[in-house]
Amino acid sequence: MKLEILPVLGIGHVSEGDDLAALIATAAPWLRDGDVLVVTSKIVSKAEGRLVDIPADGPERQVARDEVLAAETARVVASRGPTRIVQTHHGFVMASAGIDASNVDKTRLVLLPKDPDASARALRAALRDRYGRDVAVIISDTMGRPWRNGLTDVALGVAGMDPIRDHRGETDPYGNELHVTQMAVVDELAGAGELIKGKIDQVPVAVVRGYLGATRPDDGAGAAALVRDAAQDLFSLGTAEAKTAGLASGATLPDGPGPAPADPAAVRRAIEAVAGAVAPGTVFTLVDDEVRPGLAAAVPGWPEQATALVLGSPPTPVDPNDLVRFGADMHRLRIALAAEGIGSLLLPPPAASTASAALAL
Amino acid sequence: MKLEILPVLGIGHVSEGDDLAALIATAAPWLRDGDVLVVTSKIVSKAEGRLVDIPADGPERQVARDEVLAAETARVVASRGPTRIVQTHHGFVMASAGIDASNVDKTRLVLLPKDPDASARALRAALRDRYGRDVAVIISDTMGRPWRNGLTDVALGVAGMDPIRDHRGETDPYGNELHVTQMAVVDELAGAGELIKGKIDQVPVAVVRGYLGATRPDDGAGAAALVRDAAQDLFSLGTAEAKTAGLASGATLPDGPGPAPADPAAVRRAIEAVAGAVAPGTVFTLVDDEVRPGLAAAVPGWPEQATALVLGSPPTPVDPNDLVRFGADMHRLRIALAAEGIGSLLLPPPAASTASAALAL
Repeated sequence: MKLEILPVLGIGHVSEGDDLAALIATAAPWLRDGDVLVVTSKIVSKAEGRLVDIPADGPERQVARDEVLAAETARVVASRGPTRIVQTHHGFVMASAGIDASNVDKTRLVLLPKDPDASARALRAALRDRYGRDVAVIISDTMGRPWRNGLTDVALGVAGMDPIRDHRGETDPYGNELHVTQMAVVDELAGAGELIKGKIDQVPVAVVRGYLGATRPDDGAGAAALVRDAAQDLFSLGTAEAKTAGLASGATLPDGPGPAPADPAAVRRAIEAVAGAVAPGTVFTLVDDEVRPGLAAAVPGWPEQATALVLGSPPTPVDPNDLVRFGADMHRLRIALAAEGIGSLLLPPPAASTASAALAL
Repeated sequence: MKLEILPVLGIGHVSEGDDLAALIATAAPWLRDGDVLVVTSKIVSKAEGRLVDIPADGPERQVARDEVLAAETARVVASRGPTRIVQTHHGFVMASAGIDASNVDKTRLVLLPKDPDASARALRAALRDRYGRDVAVIISDTMGRPWRNGLTDVALGVAGMDPIRDHRGETDPYGNELHVTQMAVVDELAGAGELIKGKIDQVPVAVVRGYLGATRPDDGAGAAALVRDAAQDLFSLGTAEAKTAGLASGATLPDGPGPAPADPAAVRRAIEAVAGAVAPGTVFTLVDDEVRPGLAAAVPGWPEQATALVLGSPPTPVDPNDLVRFGADMHRLRIALAAEGIGSLLLPPPAASTASAALAL
């Protein structure tokens, strides 16, 4: 039992319209059923004509690059300086949408294949139908990742094998059931292929031989199964972008108590959080549960679902400018409450109280 | 030229105090100089006694797990439901700090090795000094990653090879210099090893044979070189956590104009952003550059570095409650400006104006 990773030598330059199956079958007559082909996406893109012309230099080059990037971008995930991490129309999150200016003429850019799973399926079918080889195909590209320096190759397209090996439900030798382990084996295979392909050595294809799990009769779910839905992802936005979005949400904070009763400890944390930012002498009071119903009844517009009341009093004596500042400070508190997950509504004070405003929580 | 990935069979259970070098050298007498050993971190942890006792079940088990996790956590990066993505004291960002309950008795948890680079160096030295084999050692573990489903194995500890293959400065066949390509080859090697080790097959060690770049005479920079500093990382916090932090920053928004002149288009965007959230009839006016200096001179406390002036007027007629609401709306605008990168300071209105407040930008 062993794996072998073999380079496919002699493929040379690939141009639009080239027949990749023929190039690979000719360069690797030793290909066997059950092998996993790891194919650099760049030669797939070139064969498919996924190239755009751009100026070789000057400011026009940057303008053209930006236009190409915008066209390949479904949404911007994060940016800093010239770096753009975007989600492509395929769903992949990559720097510069995977657009590459290396290993191509200076006047062209290489885009990712339009549909890498379809490219993998087509290459697999051609090798099977025309050359009688039943292999799995992985289209690979190089990606960065958060938290770790260095790049690795991963799978953009897959045909003929399962993209994930699912260990869930298996039992280890100690009797523990494995709950979450789903291995992205096609990414590990793509990385393994990179180890022998290199970056500038004109070895765009590697073969992994001996892997159990290659191949399956149909094409399988493809690399599309590796794309995590943004709504499921804990890191769907860059930290700076998410902080700005969170800050901006305070400008349009909706009015109204939250859906759940406010936790008094969280309310006190919010009051504490703004203590250093509001005008000295401003007082916020969380009214206790015994007094609250009577006071709430005396607050115009008090909403039925509100479960707590905070009274706010500006420093005295009060002039009109101080009331404006006090209102701003009430909004500071509303934001601090929102950051604790507590909705609120700004209201006039109860009749006969010394407060100048109330918050229904 | 090829790579081989070979399983090391027959290692069996590993317990505290076991001599890993002896176990591996005995199980793999075929080990050669220049091989790369990929060793599952779990057997390193077990040999080093990095285990903690916990109850097999019941609520006490969860309490004990939480305590262990807190001790292994340098900072929480993201959480959702029971999921905790944390940065460990090593700097790795991992779910549950890499603490594992699989492949171990139900009453124990396995922690990561205390210093995986040191573990790798020690194992390498023992194999060299006691068994005469000059190999590189990678200590591997399984990690998830943003944006892609499925896990892959990566390197936690490295000795005897460069963790990164740096292609910067190399020139491709088209004459383009490679600018950014630094490949985390030890992560690709760790993933390659996983393909043959599997999860439950008691094959905790794989050997990669034929990799150019293994080995180097000294131990090299180790996997510590793969840890990206949080300040350099575009995804140092989970999206939800970053949004909450951004929202909370609006509660303590500092007073004062920003360091750069305010872009009038950005000011207008901020005014537009809050239009639907402020009291109907509220008017914000960006004062033009000709009128501004005179008005600014009439604003008490106008700071010298301010470059723009926004006047705010509440809907009329104004009663004291309306002024509080108006102040809250001024803070809404201040937040919208801050989200555009524009600092501001809330001030009383200029004398003889109809405004009720001014913002110095």
